[in-house]
Amino acid sequence: MPRMTAADIDALLAASFPQARGFCAIEAIRDDELDCVVRYRDAFLRPGGTLSGPTLMTLADTAMYFLVLAMTGPQPLAVTSSLTINFLRKPPPADLHATARMLKLGSRLAVGEVHLRGGDEPRVLVAQASVTYALPAAA
Amino acid sequence: MPRMTAADIDALLAASFPQARGFCAIEAIRDDELDCVVRYRDAFLRPGGTLSGPTLMTLADTAMYFLVLAMTGPQPLAVTSSLTINFLRKPPPADLHATARMLKLGSRLAVGEVHLRGGDEPRVLVAQASVTYALPAAA
Amino acid sequence: MPRMTAADIDALLAASFPQARGFCAIEAIRDDELDCVVRYRDAFLRPGGTLSGPTLMTLADTAMYFLVLAMTGPQPLAVTSSLTINFLRKPPPADLHATARMLKLGSRLAVGEVHLRGGDEPRVLVAQASVTYALPAAA
Amino acid sequence: MPRMTAADIDALLAASFPQARGFCAIEAIRDDELDCVVRYRDAFLRPGGTLSGPTLMTLADTAMYFLVLAMTGPQPLAVTSSLTINFLRKPPPADLHATARMLKLGSRLAVGEVHLRGGDEPRVLVAQASVTYALPAAA
Repeated sequence: MPRMTAADIDALLAASFPQARGFCAIEAIRDDELDCVVRYRDAFLRPGGTLSGPTLMTLADTAMYFLVLAMTGPQPLAVTSSLTINFLRKPPPADLHATARMLKLGSRLAVGEVHLRGGDEPRVLVAQASVTYALPAAA
Repeated sequence: MPRMTAADIDALLAASFPQARGFCAIEAIRDDELDCVVRYRDAFLRPGGTLSGPTLMTLADTAMYFLVLAMTGPQPLAVTSSLTINFLRKPPPADLHATARMLKLGSRLAVGEVHLRGGDEPRVLVAQASVTYALPAAA
Repeated sequence: MPRMTAADIDALLAASFPQARGFCAIEAIRDDELDCVVRYRDAFLRPGGTLSGPTLMTLADTAMYFLVLAMTGPQPLAVTSSLTINFLRKPPPADLHATARMLKLGSRLAVGEVHLRGGDEPRVLVAQASVTYALPAAA
Repeated sequence: MPRMTAADIDALLAASFPQARGFCAIEAIRDDELDCVVRYRDAFLRPGGTLSGPTLMTLADTAMYFLVLAMTGPQPLAVTSSLTINFLRKPPPADLHATARMLKLGSRLAVGEVHLRGGDEPRVLVAQASVTYALPAAA
């Protein structure tokens, strides 16, 4: 029973956060989880032929932002308050998949875990993150 | 006694990591510290009129990368192994400054702390990060 | 196919790390996961009638240590290199359960995720941690 | 202009958090910083002859708790909401010193940085932590 669909979130971005639009695409929204994907671009590469750290961090942060929106409704002013990411394996130059899962959704803070997977091996994690969002006070 | 100057690092990026070039500019390199700055662009904005989380994370990661290069020499294959960032205050829509400081430089891991400051208040932190880089084995 | 059983780990602690013995008990070891439990003691309480932060952090760190031992064999010199913990809910004054899961086991670093659950609600997380251990060089 | 002295904090612990009393001693309180020390005990040792990770994590958390009390007044219900620690060097079997510094003190969250130093080398960090406390709502 999400409060926003992928189309709702895209429309919200178009209206209030165009800079973030188009970076990644939502693939599925479940009760307390969300899947999204970043399509490979050469601009994401770094030395060694892998995807850059900022690409992975941006995906972890964005996946959690979308999950917060899906579970709480349109509040674009939710902001990251902290993020920890562990890089586990070098992601191949290919699409990058994220699954965000809500661990706690309080009235003021949302805490989630994000798993990133890359390339053709959907079971192999390339990074793991925990992300906390501060939620705006209810209107 | 840094092993690379700002010009050396820029030349290394031009040769091996063009995607990262031009994001931020090194302002000073001291023994175990480095200052750099990101010039404001509208593309960094997010709802609320502040700079986006990925902009701050990318700066923290990049400042530490440059510090690793400055202190260890040209090894572009150094990669982030973990990063934790705490967002403290909303950065104004203005230039963003980073100071990275090395806490431990071992043979395999480098650990540093990055302080981010924004706008016209150079004493006010907008974010604090700790970043660990894995260093390639010596040739 | 763990390399050490719960009894093996207890014998190793008795021989080389008696200070850590008796804090928590291993309940199960699976391929890349380990469950353990801390039995409630009043000494773990803090104001508010909940278990203290250090109790939870010690359990997260210990669960990951045991998992490293189970998966790599008797190397008591494995040491924590970083730990991040998010406290999600106040744990009730009761037993505290941990499940550690290995995300990456390299030759030099092991990275895992630990979920802590408390009291009578085995599905409700009270804390989530990521823990990195540095492994001693192979003899 | 701290709101509590070391003696005030000790009296508060005696009244409301006796389990935490005696672990470490406050040495100095400045505007937004606090120094404290843990006296060496054999119980803190781990294999390799160094101080255990939980000893360092407990000190980082406690130093930040005391700083929150010093800066906000007697509110023992302030609780840790997240902690990240990077272990930098193996601390010698000796006293362990902590300096906690407040980075942001908001109405709901306090974020600080803690530096741990060990033994006879007061300039050498053995660990660095960032700690966030959730503050109870004002009465």
